[in-house]
Amino acid sequence: MSRPVRHEIPPRSGAAFTLDRGQRLTVIDPQGEQVADLVAFRRDDLDEVISSGRTIDYASRIFLTTGDPIYSNRSNVLLRIVEDTVGRHDFLLTPCSADTFRIIYGDEHPHRGCFGNLAAALAPYGILPDRIPVAFNVFMHVTVDGQSGEIAVRPPLSRAGDRVSFVAETDLVIGLTACSALQSNNFSFKPIHYEIES
Amino acid sequence: MSRPVRHEIPPRSGAAFTLDRGQRLTVIDPQGEQVADLVAFRRDDLDEVISSGRTIDYASRIFLTTGDPIYSNRSNVLLRIVEDTVGRHDFLLTPCSADTFRIIYGDEHPHRGCFGNLAAALAPYGILPDRIPVAFNVFMHVTVDGQSGEIAVRPPLSRAGDRVSFVAETDLVIGLTACSALQSNNFSFKPIHYEIES
Repeated sequence: MSRPVRHEIPPRSGAAFTLDRGQRLTVIDPQGEQVADLVAFRRDDLDEVISSGRTIDYASRIFLTTGDPIYSNRSNVLLRIVEDTVGRHDFLLTPCSADTFRIIYGDEHPHRGCFGNLAAALAPYGILPDRIPVAFNVFMHVTVDGQSGEIAVRPPLSRAGDRVSFVAETDLVIGLTACSALQSNNFSFKPIHYEIES
Repeated sequence: MSRPVRHEIPPRSGAAFTLDRGQRLTVIDPQGEQVADLVAFRRDDLDEVISSGRTIDYASRIFLTTGDPIYSNRSNVLLRIVEDTVGRHDFLLTPCSADTFRIIYGDEHPHRGCFGNLAAALAPYGILPDRIPVAFNVFMHVTVDGQSGEIAVRPPLSRAGDRVSFVAETDLVIGLTACSALQSNNFSFKPIHYEIES
C-alpha cells in the first residue's frame, strides 16, 4: 500500500472532500494545540448529517474516543472512530462563526470562522449553511462542571503529530477546518493535516 | 386580562402551534416528574431553528434557566426563559424516537417517541422530520460527569404544578411533547399542560 497523500488545511480555513464507504480519514495536528471542526453528510442524501444529540444519547457519554460511532440525525452510523492518540474532543459546540466572534469576543469586523469556512467549502456539494450541524470538534478541549453546568474552552491536549482516525460507514461528504477561534487553539492559529486511505 | 386557556398534551403524544412575537408560553408539569420536548422554528423562514450548540456556546453553560436566551442556528434569539420553578432541564439530547427505543431499550416494536410525535404535529406547518433539532427538554434531568463525560437520565426534579415560561422574540412555530421515554419520566407516562398569554 502506498503512503497516503497528506493534505494541509491552512490556519483559519476549511476544506470539503468526499470519503467513500470503508475509507479511513486521519486528522492530524501537525504542531499541537489546534482544533479541527469535522462535519459529515450522507453523499446520496444530504439531509442526513451527523447528530451530536443522537450520538451522545446512544453513547451515554459526551466525550467520544476510539471505538465510538458517530450517528446521524436518522440514527445511522456515518463514521466510527478507530484511532485516537489524544482522547479528548468536543461534540457540544457549533462551529465558530462571525456571530461567535461578535457575541463572545466583541469583534467589530469578525472573521467568518469555521462556520463560514465550512459553508464556503461545502457549497459546491450543494450543502446550504443552515444544514451545518454541531460539529465533531477534533482536539477541542471543553471542560464541563457537572454541578453548575458551566463549560470552559481550554487549550487542546494534542501535541505535534497527534491524530484521530475515522472510518466511513457510508459514502460521505466531509467538511473539515483548521479552527479560527482564539480560545480553542490556545491563542495561536495553526494548520491541520489530513490523510485518506482506502 | 382573562385567564389563559390551559391545553393538555396526553401522555406519549405531541402538539404543534404558533407563538407570536411577545407571547408567553408556559409549560406545566401537572403531576410531576414528566418531561416535555420543545422545539421552535422561525415561522417566516422554517430553516431557522433553535440550536443547542449556539445556545450552550454563548451561555458557557449546558444547563439553562430564567433569563437565558435560546439561540437559533443563525445566532438570533428565538425564545427567552422568563420563569422557571425547577431550574434543571436538558439541551444535549435529541427527542426519543423509534430508533432510541430500539437501540437503548431493545424494543422490537418501538413507539414512535417524541420524534415521531413532533414530526406528525409539525408536518402541517411544512416542517420535515430531518429538520427537527436537539430539543430543549423541559424538566429533563440529565446528569453529566465532568471527568468521564458519562451522562445519566434521572427522574425529573419537577413536582406537580411546576412550570417554565418562555417569551417569543419572533413569530414561531412550536413543537411540544409529553415525553414517551420511560427513563426520562421515572417510568410513568403523564400529560403535559401548556398555556399561551399575549
